[in-house]
Amino acid sequence: MKIQLYSFWRSSAAFRARIALNLKGIDYEIIPLHLLKNGGEQTTAEYAKQNPNRLIPLYVDGKNSIHQSLAIIEYLEETHPEPALLPKSTIDRAWVRSLAMDIAADVHPIGNLRVLRYLMKNLGVSTQAKETWNQHWMNLGLTSLEMQLSKDPRVGRFAIGEQISLIEICLVPQIFNALSANMDTTAYPTLMRIFEECMTLPAFMNASWEKQMDAEGLNPSIPPKN
Amino acid sequence: MKIQLYSFWRSSAAFRARIALNLKGIDYEIIPLHLLKNGGEQTTAEYAKQNPNRLIPLYVDGKNSIHQSLAIIEYLEETHPEPALLPKSTIDRAWVRSLAMDIAADVHPIGNLRVLRYLMKNLGVSTQAKETWNQHWMNLGLTSLEMQLSKDPRVGRFAIGEQISLIEICLVPQIFNALSANMDTTAYPTLMRIFEECMTLPAFMNASWEKQMDAEGLNPSIPPKN
Repeated sequence: MKIQLYSFWRSSAAFRARIALNLKGIDYEIIPLHLLKNGGEQTTAEYAKQNPNRLIPLYVDGKNSIHQSLAIIEYLEETHPEPALLPKSTIDRAWVRSLAMDIAADVHPIGNLRVLRYLMKNLGVSTQAKETWNQHWMNLGLTSLEMQLSKDPRVGRFAIGEQISLIEICLVPQIFNALSANMDTTAYPTLMRIFEECMTLPAFMNASWEKQMDAEGLNPSIPPKN
Repeated sequence: MKIQLYSFWRSSAAFRARIALNLKGIDYEIIPLHLLKNGGEQTTAEYAKQNPNRLIPLYVDGKNSIHQSLAIIEYLEETHPEPALLPKSTIDRAWVRSLAMDIAADVHPIGNLRVLRYLMKNLGVSTQAKETWNQHWMNLGLTSLEMQLSKDPRVGRFAIGEQISLIEICLVPQIFNALSANMDTTAYPTLMRIFEECMTLPAFMNASWEKQMDAEGLNPSIPPKN
């Protein structure tokens, strides 16, 4: 059975899994779930049987299913070691995982769709205040990442030298969100340089919003440099 | 140099790192940072030099420093393999990581101190609505975990047989938060059984709130069974 990935074109977490599958050269098919229609196709009882966490992505290979993007990617790293998405040295691996989680744990979940919905529906927050919230947590996280990457001697073409790692896999979808929210990204020159490097690569481009079978729009445009 | 862990007695993420260090039998000293006093000691420019993410825990061993609790624990797992906190089979490892991240990425960050502060200070949310928010995300996450653990044949004394894993390391601090928020935990019998098993073990008890040098209160009490 061909590997299946439950996905939504704009989902950051699904985008991460798509990039990793592409980088590893693993053949897979997308099962699109629409996160907005009918209250969200990920919230149905039927989907909850497969993934009680009711989020995407979900990876299914016939025998097993795995949810949580970083758990899927660590699994792919263990089962398909090449090309490696984690460096070899233990301290470098820790550094890569920590920056990936700065995004996956401390930025993305707070600006996730279900959280923004709760703000508006349950707390009566205005659209503008919701946008400010979203940008606040992104700015906080991206500022921290820029501080870490702008001064680290390991940084080369990518965050860790010439190797694509979990950092880029988490960074690129988050920058898509930032650009889509019309955020000013000039304070993040290192992040944007790495982002633009990644977007020249087929594994990232083919995982991007506009290349998805369920896409309803284009990739956000990168602002021109001054 | 002795390993240092920047910690706060009630912090879930620091609690996770304390449990892992205790389980691995690693000697360490706690550097307490008070997350509430003076706007939070983790927010100072001095601390940001060590950890630009301005959160705890931070692990420092003289040569290296690592932030993000799960990155610290994966590092400990690679550098001090025994006792293992991840199972051997790749699919079981993925399962353990996914459940750990259900808590660490999808529950804990949304109820974190800085988020609750933003709700009250920036959005004018009432104390009661803030509590409802906190309980909403905890209930959602714990319901999903209970669904996954109540039906999985791998579950034994702990989530994965007789082995303590990342699941318990993330679960126990989250149950502390739930009990402290006076949540009704009767809907989570599997989680509570595993929680109570863990709390009989010195590695968990010694990492708990009331055993910390900076503790300002006792562990939340476990409600009696009917």
